[in-house]
Amino acid sequence: MADEKTSSTDGKVVDGAVEFDGLVCPVPLQDYPNIILGHGGGGKLSAELVEHVFLPAFQNDYLGALGDSAVFPVAETVGGGRRLAMSTDSYVVRPLFFPGGSIGDLAVNGTVNDLAMVGAKPLYLTAAFIIEEGFPIAQLKRIADAMGAAARNAGVTVITGDTKVVQRGHGDGCYINTAGVGVVPDGIEIAADRARPGDAVILSGTLGDHGMAIMSVREGLEFESEIRSDSAPLADMVAAITQACPDVHTLRDPTRGGLAASLNEIAAASGCGIVIEETRLPIHPTVQSACEILGFDPLLVANEGKLVCMVPAESADAVLNAIRSDKHGSGAALIGHVVADHPGVVIAKTAIGASRVIVTPIGEQLPRIC
Amino acid sequence: MADEKTSSTDGKVVDGAVEFDGLVCPVPLQDYPNIILGHGGGGKLSAELVEHVFLPAFQNDYLGALGDSAVFPVAETVGGGRRLAMSTDSYVVRPLFFPGGSIGDLAVNGTVNDLAMVGAKPLYLTAAFIIEEGFPIAQLKRIADAMGAAARNAGVTVITGDTKVVQRGHGDGCYINTAGVGVVPDGIEIAADRARPGDAVILSGTLGDHGMAIMSVREGLEFESEIRSDSAPLADMVAAITQACPDVHTLRDPTRGGLAASLNEIAAASGCGIVIEETRLPIHPTVQSACEILGFDPLLVANEGKLVCMVPAESADAVLNAIRSDKHGSGAALIGHVVADHPGVVIAKTAIGASRVIVTPIGEQLPRIC
Repeated sequence: MADEKTSSTDGKVVDGAVEFDGLVCPVPLQDYPNIILGHGGGGKLSAELVEHVFLPAFQNDYLGALGDSAVFPVAETVGGGRRLAMSTDSYVVRPLFFPGGSIGDLAVNGTVNDLAMVGAKPLYLTAAFIIEEGFPIAQLKRIADAMGAAARNAGVTVITGDTKVVQRGHGDGCYINTAGVGVVPDGIEIAADRARPGDAVILSGTLGDHGMAIMSVREGLEFESEIRSDSAPLADMVAAITQACPDVHTLRDPTRGGLAASLNEIAAASGCGIVIEETRLPIHPTVQSACEILGFDPLLVANEGKLVCMVPAESADAVLNAIRSDKHGSGAALIGHVVADHPGVVIAKTAIGASRVIVTPIGEQLPRIC
Repeated sequence: MADEKTSSTDGKVVDGAVEFDGLVCPVPLQDYPNIILGHGGGGKLSAELVEHVFLPAFQNDYLGALGDSAVFPVAETVGGGRRLAMSTDSYVVRPLFFPGGSIGDLAVNGTVNDLAMVGAKPLYLTAAFIIEEGFPIAQLKRIADAMGAAARNAGVTVITGDTKVVQRGHGDGCYINTAGVGVVPDGIEIAADRARPGDAVILSGTLGDHGMAIMSVREGLEFESEIRSDSAPLADMVAAITQACPDVHTLRDPTRGGLAASLNEIAAASGCGIVIEETRLPIHPTVQSACEILGFDPLLVANEGKLVCMVPAESADAVLNAIRSDKHGSGAALIGHVVADHPGVVIAKTAIGASRVIVTPIGEQLPRIC
């Protein structure tokens, strides 16, 4: 980008004389509207980025200590649990901002949700950025602020981080990695291999909103009502589920690969079959239309604020009510059952009474969706 | 890359007829010598990459569970400590393989060392990959195997991970993020602001090996003896230091920004001055030559297997002996002292008796060094 300075000590040569206007030392951040390689160098520029962009966004004492690692007390962490959960995801979504969210809140909610899917209460996150040279610092600040807001909303603290800068053409604006730890309450055992024949399969809301929000922006499609990403933290919903049914067997958030991938993973891990009824799947009419126009199966489209759970049949009503009472679960529905038949295979009953096998997608239906 | 298949169901049209040779279902990994977007899609291809590349490299029960998060017992984790440390770093080093190491062992050792710098015993790591479309799977396997070997060597376990794939031209082969947790033994308080006037400043070995190993490869320089990266895990050395001197004040690993950045951070955080003696700095003659040829100051060059520590003067000999008895610390030296004069400023005494101020580098001396 033409307006980018490459060094703070550049003097301008005007009429053969060096003009010293604007030469300052040390260099204030505002002299660099865009990221330069030096911002990843571990020197003054890196420190300024931390001070002006990340600390204000994530403000907390752990991060403020600026050590090589953040240190937190276990006693506080494990209140009510003797196990910790740990998870990580990188986020490479394009575009960086989309209706309903941004890479920033996705990076928080995605890792918060991965922790929640083993029943953990998410506590601490790390945040690491790989930024392409030339990326506007104003956009980085917008992303960091979105992360900070999402973290506060989800009740987690970003306690340490890292910034690397790569040359133009070796990245794509901004990639983010988050890792998180949370505490698993005693007595909670949630895993894909715990699904049992007879379990109710409950989905917490509409399918495909995130993926089709991204695709609509990419394809420049406009619908009567805007499709918005469902990006949301699900830890409170999981807490409500485990309170209603401490013996919840399995939880998954159907992100990449959609509900089809999640159900197939659960079927494979548990050695059970799964039957879902297509007419019970909650799907926004606009999302349905977008899927038809673009040729996508909503079962394969990514969600970022939904979960599917397997619970004993006798707890189904209680869990359904618990989910519906959460602010992200009003659209919850019982969509099917775990069965002893056809182990490892997921079957959908269609509207006309036929059955079709739902297979794991081979590869990528929607690249860079999260 | 021309030999890359884009779909397993491609039939070849030969003389007008489709040839079904090589059509298989499901697709075995070996049909794809290079990464395609589908490997990041969360479907079968992603699962195969995990099964054939990552599980064999990192083999352990946590990772094998393949949940959204890994769950580990706190009781085991905190044996002898009531605090946990958490850290993260992304690795974007070029080239991916270099004398003395690779991005794989750097990604393990770097995060292990960040944990060790607060006195923690590193325990668990996450590993997340952002891979460029077209990257050879054989190279990915080499990197993953290097990570696995480094993890075993450092006594840590890679318990969960993530893979994303970006289009050609939006990455640079392979970027890796690791995050880690470790347990901080009771009674250990190591922080940059704990440096005190009178403290001895001890460096664990030669300066600049990693940075100049990378630069020599990039510039195609050859020396009488090859310059090798010092990439190494330092947790055992730190354990020896804290045993010799439980009251160690400050530890830093001088990576990006080199010893100059680390000492300036410590001076700023502690409000003390630091004086080092240039003649006491251990530097390999070949590294010194390379620095002179390429115009680098060894104080600014990155290290990946060295630490600098501030300890009470009366413990200096014990700490020096502890470091020297570690296999990565044979070159340790007392290089200076913390002083009450010139708070926040780092001074080097030169060979001819002069003093020069060592400033924090502004930006990037060696881009993408780690």
